[in-house]
Amino acid sequence: MAGGGDELKLLGMWASPFVMRAKLALGFKGLRYEDVEEDIFGGKCELLLSSNPVHTKVPVVLHNGRPVCESHIIVQYIDEAFPGTGPSFLPTDPYERAIARLWGAYVDDKLLASFLQSARGKTEEEKAEGLKQTLVAVENMEAAFRELSKGKPFFGGDTVRYLDVTLGALVAWVHAAEKLYGFRLFDAARSPLLNAWAERFGALDTAKAVLADVDRLVDYAKQRQAAAAASSDN
Amino acid sequence: MAGGGDELKLLGMWASPFVMRAKLALGFKGLRYEDVEEDIFGGKCELLLSSNPVHTKVPVVLHNGRPVCESHIIVQYIDEAFPGTGPSFLPTDPYERAIARLWGAYVDDKLLASFLQSARGKTEEEKAEGLKQTLVAVENMEAAFRELSKGKPFFGGDTVRYLDVTLGALVAWVHAAEKLYGFRLFDAARSPLLNAWAERFGALDTAKAVLADVDRLVDYAKQRQAAAAASSDN
Repeated sequence: MAGGGDELKLLGMWASPFVMRAKLALGFKGLRYEDVEEDIFGGKCELLLSSNPVHTKVPVVLHNGRPVCESHIIVQYIDEAFPGTGPSFLPTDPYERAIARLWGAYVDDKLLASFLQSARGKTEEEKAEGLKQTLVAVENMEAAFRELSKGKPFFGGDTVRYLDVTLGALVAWVHAAEKLYGFRLFDAARSPLLNAWAERFGALDTAKAVLADVDRLVDYAKQRQAAAAASSDN
Repeated sequence: MAGGGDELKLLGMWASPFVMRAKLALGFKGLRYEDVEEDIFGGKCELLLSSNPVHTKVPVVLHNGRPVCESHIIVQYIDEAFPGTGPSFLPTDPYERAIARLWGAYVDDKLLASFLQSARGKTEEEKAEGLKQTLVAVENMEAAFRELSKGKPFFGGDTVRYLDVTLGALVAWVHAAEKLYGFRLFDAARSPLLNAWAERFGALDTAKAVLADVDRLVDYAKQRQAAAAASSDN
């Protein structure tokens, strides 16, 4: 492992996009880690509870036994704790760092949140509002990509950086959602730059190694939906 | 202003705790700025819309005309853009930085969110659940203060740092909420360390200059409640 005696352990759950985000960060940095799969819907594992007593959520990265939680914070931690290893995710310029963090937060707070609402809203009205907000968010992200990539392949230019890791974590679920709901989040007509970026990102060796298999995600989502329907019937 | 030709402008709204957070960061850094009050409930000002087209929310800090949004990102930006001015808000150690960011997110996502639910929940049940979660969050923050301050006056030890600024932004509303709802968030019996910290923080010159007057906040909240009740009667 990089850093000589460094021991890295990831407490995760294979289908979680946030766990995939942490794995992408570790992967692009070229860091080796022990991958510990948690049964988050069954019993909570002792290590998870003792490592993340406040949130009890995956992912948790244990670096020499010390826990770091929350995917955005994990990506920044990995970037800062291993500065000489692999690419720097965040730019050095303070303003560019702020912009990267802003769009990073936007990915979860707006794009993902509205996308989830469009798929899982309680009423048709809620779903329609979710879809409307999703389309606005995609349009904003498309404009952000145009501005930040400056004609290069990634948000980070020639190299995968913070926003590529952040948004890249959703790519497998984007494809799974298309199979599940028939809605393509990044579409060649509506968002040609993001559509091409998602293809390009997904084809990277690290992404292929980290991102979950799309058909397995589809099966997993169908099982969860069936279980939720069965429990609400009782 | 620090940095010679630097021009700083804050688009804000006096009662917003997020705006107070940005003002505290600027204040503790000793940076002078133009304070532009936005009428966020009336028309959106042109400058705000052109500066923050995605979120259209205050606060926005304009540094030499370039906008930075979202209070947590603003605090980090100010810290990174003016490294030689005033105290460093974030520690230099990557692990300590991660912990500061984690608790910073906790302040808004858990403590503030559950506190707001306890006051504004739609049903008595929702309010009770909000209060329960608030008490858990206060207990966790109290433990965090014990661990991070190491017996010193602030989260940052002897000096005000990231978490002092982040949580300090809520102190005026904590006192206002006590007058409005009769509930004291930081209580001498339940959270003696945070209670003493809030008093200590509020007595600092910068905090006194930045934090809104408690009675004015109380009047403002009553007016907003009356307006909301009147509009729901129509």
